[in-house]
Amino acid sequence: MNKIIQDQEVVKDQTVTIQDDFWGGYIRLVQNVVIPYQYEALHDRALGAEPSHAIANFEIAAGRKTGEFYGWVFQDSDVAKWLEAVGYSLSITRDPELERQADEVIDLVGEAQQEDGYLNTYFTIKEPGKRWTNLNDCHELYCAGHFIEAAVSYYEATGKRKLLDIMCRMVDHIDSVFGPEEGKMQGYDGHQEIELALVKLYRLTGEERYLKLSSFFINERGQQPNFLKEQWDNLGKINFFTGRKEDLDLKYYQSHLPVREQKVAVGHAVRAVYMYTAMADLAAITGDESLREACERLWNNITNKQMYITGGIGSTHRGEAFTFDYDLPNDSVYAETCASIGLIFFAQRMLRISPDARYADVMERALYNNVLGSMAQDGKHYFYVNPLEVWPQACSCNPEKHHVKSERQGWFGCACCPPNVARLLTSLNQYIYTVHGDTLYTNLYIGSELRTKLGGTDVAIQQQSTYPWKGIVSMKINPKEEAEFGIALRIPSWSLGMEIRVNGEALNTAENIEQGYLVIRRMWRAGDIIEVNDPMEAHRIYAHPNLRADAQKVTIQRGPLVYCLESIDNGEPLSSISLKEDGELTAAFDETLLGGAVVVEADGLRVDQESWSGGLYSREKAPLQSVKVKAVPYYLWGNRGSGEMKVWIPEGSM
Amino acid sequence: MNKIIQDQEVVKDQTVTIQDDFWGGYIRLVQNVVIPYQYEALHDRALGAEPSHAIANFEIAAGRKTGEFYGWVFQDSDVAKWLEAVGYSLSITRDPELERQADEVIDLVGEAQQEDGYLNTYFTIKEPGKRWTNLNDCHELYCAGHFIEAAVSYYEATGKRKLLDIMCRMVDHIDSVFGPEEGKMQGYDGHQEIELALVKLYRLTGEERYLKLSSFFINERGQQPNFLKEQWDNLGKINFFTGRKEDLDLKYYQSHLPVREQKVAVGHAVRAVYMYTAMADLAAITGDESLREACERLWNNITNKQMYITGGIGSTHRGEAFTFDYDLPNDSVYAETCASIGLIFFAQRMLRISPDARYADVMERALYNNVLGSMAQDGKHYFYVNPLEVWPQACSCNPEKHHVKSERQGWFGCACCPPNVARLLTSLNQYIYTVHGDTLYTNLYIGSELRTKLGGTDVAIQQQSTYPWKGIVSMKINPKEEAEFGIALRIPSWSLGMEIRVNGEALNTAENIEQGYLVIRRMWRAGDIIEVNDPMEAHRIYAHPNLRADAQKVTIQRGPLVYCLESIDNGEPLSSISLKEDGELTAAFDETLLGGAVVVEADGLRVDQESWSGGLYSREKAPLQSVKVKAVPYYLWGNRGSGEMKVWIPEGSM
Repeated sequence: MNKIIQDQEVVKDQTVTIQDDFWGGYIRLVQNVVIPYQYEALHDRALGAEPSHAIANFEIAAGRKTGEFYGWVFQDSDVAKWLEAVGYSLSITRDPELERQADEVIDLVGEAQQEDGYLNTYFTIKEPGKRWTNLNDCHELYCAGHFIEAAVSYYEATGKRKLLDIMCRMVDHIDSVFGPEEGKMQGYDGHQEIELALVKLYRLTGEERYLKLSSFFINERGQQPNFLKEQWDNLGKINFFTGRKEDLDLKYYQSHLPVREQKVAVGHAVRAVYMYTAMADLAAITGDESLREACERLWNNITNKQMYITGGIGSTHRGEAFTFDYDLPNDSVYAETCASIGLIFFAQRMLRISPDARYADVMERALYNNVLGSMAQDGKHYFYVNPLEVWPQACSCNPEKHHVKSERQGWFGCACCPPNVARLLTSLNQYIYTVHGDTLYTNLYIGSELRTKLGGTDVAIQQQSTYPWKGIVSMKINPKEEAEFGIALRIPSWSLGMEIRVNGEALNTAENIEQGYLVIRRMWRAGDIIEVNDPMEAHRIYAHPNLRADAQKVTIQRGPLVYCLESIDNGEPLSSISLKEDGELTAAFDETLLGGAVVVEADGLRVDQESWSGGLYSREKAPLQSVKVKAVPYYLWGNRGSGEMKVWIPEGSM
Repeated sequence: MNKIIQDQEVVKDQTVTIQDDFWGGYIRLVQNVVIPYQYEALHDRALGAEPSHAIANFEIAAGRKTGEFYGWVFQDSDVAKWLEAVGYSLSITRDPELERQADEVIDLVGEAQQEDGYLNTYFTIKEPGKRWTNLNDCHELYCAGHFIEAAVSYYEATGKRKLLDIMCRMVDHIDSVFGPEEGKMQGYDGHQEIELALVKLYRLTGEERYLKLSSFFINERGQQPNFLKEQWDNLGKINFFTGRKEDLDLKYYQSHLPVREQKVAVGHAVRAVYMYTAMADLAAITGDESLREACERLWNNITNKQMYITGGIGSTHRGEAFTFDYDLPNDSVYAETCASIGLIFFAQRMLRISPDARYADVMERALYNNVLGSMAQDGKHYFYVNPLEVWPQACSCNPEKHHVKSERQGWFGCACCPPNVARLLTSLNQYIYTVHGDTLYTNLYIGSELRTKLGGTDVAIQQQSTYPWKGIVSMKINPKEEAEFGIALRIPSWSLGMEIRVNGEALNTAENIEQGYLVIRRMWRAGDIIEVNDPMEAHRIYAHPNLRADAQKVTIQRGPLVYCLESIDNGEPLSSISLKEDGELTAAFDETLLGGAVVVEADGLRVDQESWSGGLYSREKAPLQSVKVKAVPYYLWGNRGSGEMKVWIPEGSM
């Protein structure tokens, strides 16, 4: 019981307000462009977007108008994700007009709720008698989960209970349908999401039933007889989406084994990381050691064997799924934006269990590379798939690469990724710090103001950061009263030597490192200043020899940013270029590059195409020329027209 | 008219009997194992093979028994391909028991033929009213084409007319249904095959109607209004195989443009090369210059931009198709065995139009590498897909590589490739020589005896060859009477210097080279001897800089054989290995390797995995060690258990 209360405090007592040059711009982009654009899209008024019909479905379900359900079976979740992002946005900036829009949408959602608390427009409109008959494919609990997250977010921002009450009624209804008791369904959703949402609802309300229901869904998954398999068989093995008889792949749903027995990340990557997130949540709250161990194993499997250097996960678009250890092809990749966001959720929950910089390293990696790279500078175009190597002609002319795009796309019919980016960026303040005991752990270096309680007193901490372009960070510590507590600073895995000073006095960073954090424990007084300085040098990264796709290759990283080459800077084909083994890497800020960014120049070699004899194959090798190679941050790729891009480059010598 | 007669003479006056250590073994394997095994398979008696039901379908169609059609809609073609191979086999070796089996099958085929000449068990049994309603997918003319080829082969071997008569009746029926005349269908088959078969039938019979029908099919293809599109629309756009509504991709069928306007090889690779073969046939016979130009353009596109170094074609398994120029991925490849066989057909027909060693070079490349490599040493296991890089775990665990196998498979339900290999190898004698005017062109160095007419007299030529292991060839020329004619010897593209002697006297090979052949024109007397000696040194080959998949890589070739590395010889992962830029290549015959083969040893470098720090990504590069690398002929890969294989290896230095 002690655990539970402690864990809740961690979350409830913090307020963090982001004040950051780099991230502030993106957050404002979400507030000013993405959220309004999504609102228009949900109402089928967005230019260039496929019709969503999501609001219309609610209007029909609410009886406000007549018509047919249209869209994906999980279309409701787009409304929920928007509301969740609106909640976070209102927490940052009050906006009466946005709040009015949200209140109207919430009124509509309330009207669409059924007498017994059930809420889902697809089954209300299209298949009224078929509730809970196809948990594999139909996302009922998934949609509920997103509305629960929205309800928590919106309540925390506005104090308004309406959506929270709607969702508590829905959860009460779900609780009456699912559970271990006789007469209830021993089932769970094909797409995990409600599990982590119920934990959020429990954290907010303290209602134990919600925690138990989440545990039930997690514990039931993969048990025999297999619930998903039974429903599949009952449905004649017909896949809802294809309409065809198919074999069921339980790994796709992470339902092949009870969760505690799962050792390797498999199946649909988003489902997987949403589930691991809930498992970590439950392990943190209940102290369940076997669940924590499973999380640790799965975390290690992903991050040591199945993660792209950009923080992308999911090596194949077939099933948008994990494949197997060290299988990380760069050009036929999936690495869905939503999956990296889920990995960030998972990392955040692991950090709540125990402070370990490994989790924050991955969080930072996924955030600054895969996730940030998914969004165009206009906030209206997105990558769903985030490749590490692109040849545009292959994307259009080789059907095995049709899913990879060389330019960000407009809002899709299945618009999962953009709203996920919106809700992550507007809630980014939740990822900077964690507290364990009376130590504050700094996970991300993002300019912000923290107000919390440490060492028995209220503390305000002003973080100023020059990330990702420079490694200079300062933190002003302002305890209300002088107090002893710990401040832990993450030493990033990429750091080549971080200098840390307190009130001007250098600390010995070699000592006092605990799990990747430099822990400073002392009496803090108002006005104390921590200064962090990392030279943030561009450096080379190599991949594990088992990672065949990157063998004999190298990439460039500087600070949290992974770099790539683009043909617009280096000519085509990029495959002609290698980096000189002993060459210099020179970083410089380029104001003209997409609003300004640090570019890295490297000594490279280029195959002299002009002197190629002309045939497809030849005994004569084309000679190499020395060239300067220009690398740009991965997250900026594809913003200057369609061209080739490569993260991993061969290394060679002349 | 003159052209026609000349062209026919070329084919009819030659008899070539193969007497070759290397190929003789494979041909006997086909005769002793493959043909009998296939006979059992067709009768559903083959162990380990999926039931074929092909003979049973004919028995049902013939009224000998009742039952349902089973198998692919083109199942009949398996019977035809077997009969064709039997014909070639009987031409090599009389075998009364085999001939009896074939006669019985032919009797059965005759009984299954309908009153009006129509022959196809699927439509006879399963959809009697639906003849010619789905040319896109249902392969009626394709099956007829294979039976025509069988009829020609069997007649030429045995002089028996029965199957020939059956097929002439079928063709007469087809001729009554299809044609430019009003009331006939202006259509053609979705899968080209009958076009080249009709040319064979014409060559044998001299019946102009068959030539005209072939020309009609070729000329009609891709014309507007598009026949395939109209049938597709009439069928409600339903794909016969998937049962789903789909968009029609006319490129898949090479029906997107009239054939003379096609400039780039597109779509299903087997269909494409079967069509180009017929186009070249027609161009050779009719002297149609626009058709020849189209053939030349398509040939150049394939061989200069879309062909693997193994002679494989078709870069994607989706549609088993060509993709686009320089897109030749090694591990997600298709490179179907049948497609390379079709490319050999195409090359042979181009050689008949004009002597140019480029065609023969490609023929040799596809034969000794892709095609030969497809068959296991037991003759019962085959690759349908012929990759240039394999990681067995990816084949099983990454769904995008499920189509690639690391070991040869048993006879499939869709057993297209094994019978195609059988018919090619038993008719290999047709690919060694071509005659133009009174010059004999030697395209392949395969031990054999040729009897033909040159310079007005009968000539016998005994070729002895040590290929592919040594470059020594001798040819004894025995004209019945002293006569002047030309003998042209192909200088292979891989040759580093061929020494040629006539009766012991060295010729100046630098002069007298015409289109890649050394032409020896002189008075020939009985007993004259040509000796050819090529050092056949192992050498490195590089790919065009635009071929991104092979950039910064190298492969090894020796004589006609492309080499590869296998993990059984070099350890895993093969991606850790590079070849030293300046290293030696040493070739030596290894008696113990799969019946004996020349292996190549190279100086290589290997990433020292032991000293890798352990993470997925690291700033530390693992050091390189010098190692000896062992390369084996590509055609032998995968015969020693499942393991990694790679044709293209990075080149590096220490």
